[in-house]
Amino acid sequence: MKLTEDQIKEIKEQQTQQNITKRVTAPELERILYDAIPILDHGFIRVVDYMGDDTSIVQSARVSYGKGTKKVSTDSGLIKYLMRHWHSTPFEMCEIKYHVKLPIFIARQWIRHRTANVNEYSARYSILDKEFYLPEPKNLAAQSQSNRQGRGDILEGEKAKKVLALLKGDAEQTYDNYETMLNERYDGTIIDKNSVGLARELARMNLTLNTYTQWYWKTDLLNLMNFLRLRADHHAQYEIRAYADAMLETVKKWVPITYEAFMDYRVGGVEVSARGKEIIKKMMKGENINLDQSGLSKREWNELMEAFELKDKII
Amino acid sequence: MKLTEDQIKEIKEQQTQQNITKRVTAPELERILYDAIPILDHGFIRVVDYMGDDTSIVQSARVSYGKGTKKVSTDSGLIKYLMRHWHSTPFEMCEIKYHVKLPIFIARQWIRHRTANVNEYSARYSILDKEFYLPEPKNLAAQSQSNRQGRGDILEGEKAKKVLALLKGDAEQTYDNYETMLNERYDGTIIDKNSVGLARELARMNLTLNTYTQWYWKTDLLNLMNFLRLRADHHAQYEIRAYADAMLETVKKWVPITYEAFMDYRVGGVEVSARGKEIIKKMMKGENINLDQSGLSKREWNELMEAFELKDKII
Amino acid sequence: MKLTEDQIKEIKEQQTQQNITKRVTAPELERILYDAIPILDHGFIRVVDYMGDDTSIVQSARVSYGKGTKKVSTDSGLIKYLMRHWHSTPFEMCEIKYHVKLPIFIARQWIRHRTANVNEYSARYSILDKEFYLPEPKNLAAQSQSNRQGRGDILEGEKAKKVLALLKGDAEQTYDNYETMLNERYDGTIIDKNSVGLARELARMNLTLNTYTQWYWKTDLLNLMNFLRLRADHHAQYEIRAYADAMLETVKKWVPITYEAFMDYRVGGVEVSARGKEIIKKMMKGENINLDQSGLSKREWNELMEAFELKDKII
Amino acid sequence: MKLTEDQIKEIKEQQTQQNITKRVTAPELERILYDAIPILDHGFIRVVDYMGDDTSIVQSARVSYGKGTKKVSTDSGLIKYLMRHWHSTPFEMCEIKYHVKLPIFIARQWIRHRTANVNEYSARYSILDKEFYLPEPKNLAAQSQSNRQGRGDILEGEKAKKVLALLKGDAEQTYDNYETMLNERYDGTIIDKNSVGLARELARMNLTLNTYTQWYWKTDLLNLMNFLRLRADHHAQYEIRAYADAMLETVKKWVPITYEAFMDYRVGGVEVSARGKEIIKKMMKGENINLDQSGLSKREWNELMEAFELKDKII
Repeated sequence: MKLTEDQIKEIKEQQTQQNITKRVTAPELERILYDAIPILDHGFIRVVDYMGDDTSIVQSARVSYGKGTKKVSTDSGLIKYLMRHWHSTPFEMCEIKYHVKLPIFIARQWIRHRTANVNEYSARYSILDKEFYLPEPKNLAAQSQSNRQGRGDILEGEKAKKVLALLKGDAEQTYDNYETMLNERYDGTIIDKNSVGLARELARMNLTLNTYTQWYWKTDLLNLMNFLRLRADHHAQYEIRAYADAMLETVKKWVPITYEAFMDYRVGGVEVSARGKEIIKKMMKGENINLDQSGLSKREWNELMEAFELKDKII
Repeated sequence: MKLTEDQIKEIKEQQTQQNITKRVTAPELERILYDAIPILDHGFIRVVDYMGDDTSIVQSARVSYGKGTKKVSTDSGLIKYLMRHWHSTPFEMCEIKYHVKLPIFIARQWIRHRTANVNEYSARYSILDKEFYLPEPKNLAAQSQSNRQGRGDILEGEKAKKVLALLKGDAEQTYDNYETMLNERYDGTIIDKNSVGLARELARMNLTLNTYTQWYWKTDLLNLMNFLRLRADHHAQYEIRAYADAMLETVKKWVPITYEAFMDYRVGGVEVSARGKEIIKKMMKGENINLDQSGLSKREWNELMEAFELKDKII
Repeated sequence: MKLTEDQIKEIKEQQTQQNITKRVTAPELERILYDAIPILDHGFIRVVDYMGDDTSIVQSARVSYGKGTKKVSTDSGLIKYLMRHWHSTPFEMCEIKYHVKLPIFIARQWIRHRTANVNEYSARYSILDKEFYLPEPKNLAAQSQSNRQGRGDILEGEKAKKVLALLKGDAEQTYDNYETMLNERYDGTIIDKNSVGLARELARMNLTLNTYTQWYWKTDLLNLMNFLRLRADHHAQYEIRAYADAMLETVKKWVPITYEAFMDYRVGGVEVSARGKEIIKKMMKGENINLDQSGLSKREWNELMEAFELKDKII
Repeated sequence: MKLTEDQIKEIKEQQTQQNITKRVTAPELERILYDAIPILDHGFIRVVDYMGDDTSIVQSARVSYGKGTKKVSTDSGLIKYLMRHWHSTPFEMCEIKYHVKLPIFIARQWIRHRTANVNEYSARYSILDKEFYLPEPKNLAAQSQSNRQGRGDILEGEKAKKVLALLKGDAEQTYDNYETMLNERYDGTIIDKNSVGLARELARMNLTLNTYTQWYWKTDLLNLMNFLRLRADHHAQYEIRAYADAMLETVKKWVPITYEAFMDYRVGGVEVSARGKEIIKKMMKGENINLDQSGLSKREWNELMEAFELKDKII
């Protein structure tokens, strides 16, 4: 991630604000407000605004007149209870806004979370930066043989080099041709003063999906947790997980009590089906039970065994 | 509106907060933060939190790194442009949270605005306050004869008195019986120590629809404007308009530039149909045109005449 | 539930339709289409339209050109997989529309599910039916002593009688006064031809919350399942559960494969927290573990014991 | 647009369905159900399911027990009234589902309409088709000089040829390299049996934004009209307008009365601001008024003059 002089200066200016407010503040989050936290090779996330803290959840759950906080321990108990029993609305009372720079193919996954507000940098008005995502060799994985949507082993040295060369070459060439069609360089230089360029809304179609874009993305805490639960999961594509992991850290700074309950009940928790429950119950009674007797599919059985680390039972 | 000692104290405590933040603040709105603004006889609205200001709209429309503000005049021009051309997403980047006390029949209209977050005081857990809405005589209107959903003339003195007596009598009696069924008074006093009360979730069904409830209600600026456009309109029921009008004032303090554009393009504006446009065009050319030639229904014709104050032309 | 002659005739007319369509149909659901299924004393649900069936889920999950069905067994496996792994979007591809008659205090719970479309009978335009919900004696429960929002024992005979008399008396009186204020009976008869009535939008405020209202309610299968998971649960208030239970039966007729997966993974399933998982793992290994060692609150511990029917371990 | 033998066969199979239903049907829409209507060079839309018709809007607006249709003329009047006064919820009672093939850069605009359900073809599981959008020469426009996001003149012959050559060359090359990285051709042929391919979720990043993708997209009639109002507008990018125009035709076949009202009040209508209204009023009275006196910006003034075809007044 490389910011321009101007961008660094603008961020600094925001950070030197010292405004007085009667609103609640989250001191740990204030500390990193506006900071560009690097993700992947050219991406970042920045928290640019927020509203509420842990006490806001308690306050609205109680519809109270005041801060709604008696003691931290009481608040913590209530927040855990709300999380455990899927009382969702109090968590919607906190809001956060990020500025994110990310590759387009990741933006396309991200945008499927619909309960959020988004303003994306417009390639109809402006020219996109000359930046593309190129994976680090350790993330260049082969197609998984067992899981149709997953990754398998890391590509070996020569193969990896070849892939990177192709990705880099194609991204650079298509970007160069993007400039050619626009008759303008990424920095605003006109290429041929006697010519006109193709409309920006058309020229952008020549870019590859690893080109970086950026957006402002705002959501409430409940929907942020829904996002993180799916995207910080090990089934998620590595590239979006990198963003989700960094966002989890900002949640921890913002609403530490909620963060803890979220990690316990959602991220670290497991869902057991009605059938799965019967199997666990039998196993706890010491009964022997196997796949055939279980009524589960093989895949489901293995998922259950894995969840409770009954690894020797995997077939 | 009467607050208890405790409530007044809690509000005061919130208002004495002096937190330092790097976030943008809206100084005019800060001044009234947490204030209970009286509405109707026992209701209120209080702004309890907010996020962003006019510059946040500009900032996200530009997806900029910094505050996004060059000059107020530039910002104002951009905000007007966005409003005029229905660029909705930048207005979603500001968020506000209200604490509202309101009669249940109004709450039922309000809740139909779905893009908002709400926590309502639970009458399954708690006992509702002994407060009901009784209209002022000047708001006791007869059913309109011309408009099936509207109000007509104000009821005369005797009739009005009778209506108020019925409303008051029924509200008090059903509330008394609510307490009797609960075996508990509104202040927590147990009525008969040797008896048990009906479950709260059941007893509440005996209350009338003018009983006051309260909730935390949070939404973004775009959806707030959608709400206000419909509910501050003269077609809206007077009782919800009273809330909408007070909220409009808070918008003015919060995002003054947006407020001005909203009043110009939405609240004070008018939509003209394709057919209506043809009529206006002809009239501007000095052509005479009447209802029969217009292709409009009588109702539509009158709406058009009214919008452009061509009152002599109403048939 | 009592329908008028006209209503019965209108429903019959809908049911005699024999339209030809190229769309998929759900034969079991067609059989009960438009039927008013009685709920509580005067309520009902009617399925009035639907779109899609189990194959539509498979079809959109695969983004296929055709029906997307190879074999029922393959479809079933895919639907289970989608349900287990929270792939939510394919379930949004089926849609259903209900006509519901329900008490207002239940309508107020129901409407909090925001991702749905609703048109409610307007008491600004029209006069509400003279029908109120009066619980059967077996559902007249006392306030729970242990659970602040729950129900305890059933009220005894005399107490129950008294409660019912209060509910009935108040509902009838407030409705009579509603008519008086309107100067109009529920059947349209004008009471005093020389007088005018209070506006309907005002008079309605005198009604009690057990008055019946009705609406058209439309949602997709995913959001319907979210609704049913919460409202058919034993923590839900009995009166809304009565509706949810009847709706579950319509889901079974509509999308039988999805219904089965839903019952297994959601309704009958259990969520175990990270800490809970550690406890289960230890118990499966035969280790003794108790509340103190568990790191759980007493309440949480009991919930876990109950989920796995380790009842002897409840403290 | 070229469909495979299998796809054509699958579509035919859907079209030969002759199911009996008690639901309302839209005969004109049934006629084209499942048809792939070609858009751009390789795209299409297909209506694959729908629910409701014009009478469903009337029925739910009235919350009626029966079909809710007295006479077509009454229905038409009510639908126009609802449209004119922004009564939105009855239009949400109709639902439609499309199968769409479209270039990725258009999919990215489209997806910003959040109140819709979508399943996109997954390039994590599967290989995308070898199809890219190449504009027809008449659509190869230069960047507009006056409007930062618009199109200007059509590129001349030689320039156009060069642009097309670049677009075609880059799309083909990046697709070839996509196959190379995958070690697999678009038709499933393995390139080198002794090697492994890069994970699909990674390889896709090498594709250009004019590559075609496809999805199932389902929405209600209200949100469809919101989409069409913006995307069938002349400010919309030509490529998405091509889809919107074809969808407008399907709306006409589905709900002809609503279509007519939509064209009159939304598509062909105009919004006039409070200030604009004052100007029109003065002009109708024969007063002379110019930009300076108007209080409008030059841009706003011109938009107003254009709306009412007062072209001679444009400055």
